[in-house]
Amino acid sequence: MQRILWAALVACVLSVAFGPIVVPWLKKLKFGQTIYDLGPQSHKKKQGTPTMGGIIFTVPGLLVGAAFSVREGRLDYLPMLLVSALGFGLVGFVDDFIKVKLKRSLGLTPKQKLIPQIVIAIALSVWAYLNPNIGSSLIVPFAKTDWNLGWFYIPVMAFILVGTVNSANLLDGLDGLCGSISMIDFACFTVICGLLAVRSPENAGNFTNTAVFSAAMFGAIIGFLRYNSHPAQVFMGDVGSFVLGGALAGIAMVTRLSLLLPIIALAMFVSSLSDIIQISYFKLTHGKRVFKMAPLHHHFELSGMPETKIVTMYRLITIALCLAALLGFAD
Amino acid sequence: MQRILWAALVACVLSVAFGPIVVPWLKKLKFGQTIYDLGPQSHKKKQGTPTMGGIIFTVPGLLVGAAFSVREGRLDYLPMLLVSALGFGLVGFVDDFIKVKLKRSLGLTPKQKLIPQIVIAIALSVWAYLNPNIGSSLIVPFAKTDWNLGWFYIPVMAFILVGTVNSANLLDGLDGLCGSISMIDFACFTVICGLLAVRSPENAGNFTNTAVFSAAMFGAIIGFLRYNSHPAQVFMGDVGSFVLGGALAGIAMVTRLSLLLPIIALAMFVSSLSDIIQISYFKLTHGKRVFKMAPLHHHFELSGMPETKIVTMYRLITIALCLAALLGFAD
Repeated sequence: MQRILWAALVACVLSVAFGPIVVPWLKKLKFGQTIYDLGPQSHKKKQGTPTMGGIIFTVPGLLVGAAFSVREGRLDYLPMLLVSALGFGLVGFVDDFIKVKLKRSLGLTPKQKLIPQIVIAIALSVWAYLNPNIGSSLIVPFAKTDWNLGWFYIPVMAFILVGTVNSANLLDGLDGLCGSISMIDFACFTVICGLLAVRSPENAGNFTNTAVFSAAMFGAIIGFLRYNSHPAQVFMGDVGSFVLGGALAGIAMVTRLSLLLPIIALAMFVSSLSDIIQISYFKLTHGKRVFKMAPLHHHFELSGMPETKIVTMYRLITIALCLAALLGFAD
Repeated sequence: MQRILWAALVACVLSVAFGPIVVPWLKKLKFGQTIYDLGPQSHKKKQGTPTMGGIIFTVPGLLVGAAFSVREGRLDYLPMLLVSALGFGLVGFVDDFIKVKLKRSLGLTPKQKLIPQIVIAIALSVWAYLNPNIGSSLIVPFAKTDWNLGWFYIPVMAFILVGTVNSANLLDGLDGLCGSISMIDFACFTVICGLLAVRSPENAGNFTNTAVFSAAMFGAIIGFLRYNSHPAQVFMGDVGSFVLGGALAGIAMVTRLSLLLPIIALAMFVSSLSDIIQISYFKLTHGKRVFKMAPLHHHFELSGMPETKIVTMYRLITIALCLAALLGFAD
């Protein structure tokens, strides 16, 4: 537990220290966010806030997660976690870079983003499938039973990975929203992995490393929120939300707890779902809308709820859901 | 651990449900806060926001804390915790009531507040002193040693209790500030008491009840923050901050961890300290000031930091300090 706490603390201190170096540098390089043309009008004033701030937590989070890991024994979870976070993060980085340099609000086309994401997701799914400690089954939350998917595991897991990463991206629409929801989820996964490490002595090293990785991400995001909370001095950008989605989905994959994601990352799930509902309904009805705007947090915003209030609501619900999720692991 | 998680969850749900009943009722009874004449000018717009919202977390927190407690064995911590929270809370309630009903911004005179506080604090200190599981010594954080104060324990503990309660009160100056700092501290104490329950089988019931009480307060505040976060629909009032201070100082007292308070509740500590420094310096220099305004959070506000940003900063530092404090209890 010492190791886990230290990882969180060191990552937090590093990212707090990293912020004042990165933010002015991003500003100088003109990595100001070109505000999405389809967002709420009130967001126009956010034009010029630097983006790609996700590197403030990515660098300390991944470095500390690796540096504080255990080294003895057969350890294969950490490489998967790093590949998941960095692989998807790289797609986001390219997207951000194009947005900023070409001054094009949308960056990569959806297809250009999706294809490398699917490739990374399939590679990770096969990797996990072949790992004797992970294999083809998922834990069914609260039911204390496994759901063996056989080879079908690979497309399902790839879908979960791609879905989570893009959901995290969709959630990233209000100051501090995606960061604080992820922070709470990483805290929850840290506790769960810590408990799993104690309960599975034969695989304790892998679970400890996953807990350390999760704790480092948790700590690093704390530091990042210092600069990203309302009013934000920096946005995380696609690089940030893709790293967060990749890291979260990666942890869920190695712990076989992907079915927990719709609970503890409900905020991400409803962001995607509300988007899908909105678009489908719009197409079906040739122009009618379910929400004032999708994803859901923009609907609340246009309904007159203050931005900070929406973020608080999402946070509080996420904390409650994480507590409920922990019930499945408590004695 | 099931019991602890359920306490947090149920208290959270109850206080979320309690809010929409209490807030309109407080408004109807005209319990609008008369904004302190000496606060920042920008706070004038907060005039009319109902106060005494602390009852939103006090009722569910204390009820759930008591209802979910263990009943077998010699249990004496929970009564102390309830007396500490309710006793100080009652002083706050009277203060709020006078403020609102007499439309006098300052409520009770300082002396009228301090005397009942000191009486309650001494009674609690004697009670703890006579308890064989608590006694006259304090744990020195990180040093793994005890500091035995002898009969001197009583005035020291009384001072800590009164100091914490009034510091919590001073911290309550920005939307969501005192609530979220206390929430983080209760989460930290929940983990610590949970660990102590496992490690001290002979006193497990008492530590479990303290963890349950702390978790219930944590959960209840989550629900309260739904209504108190920026922009606040309700303030906690003195009844709220006195209950929080009393509950925190009470937990610290029964666990003999009062020396941990200046670390995990540093935000409260610096609120008092900055006030004391400001007033002493003002008197010494016949009119000079160290801070633009005391307590410290108003200094940051007048220095141009947005209210939400100050609250975030206080929260993040508190999380980091709580992680550091947990290091002293980790294997």
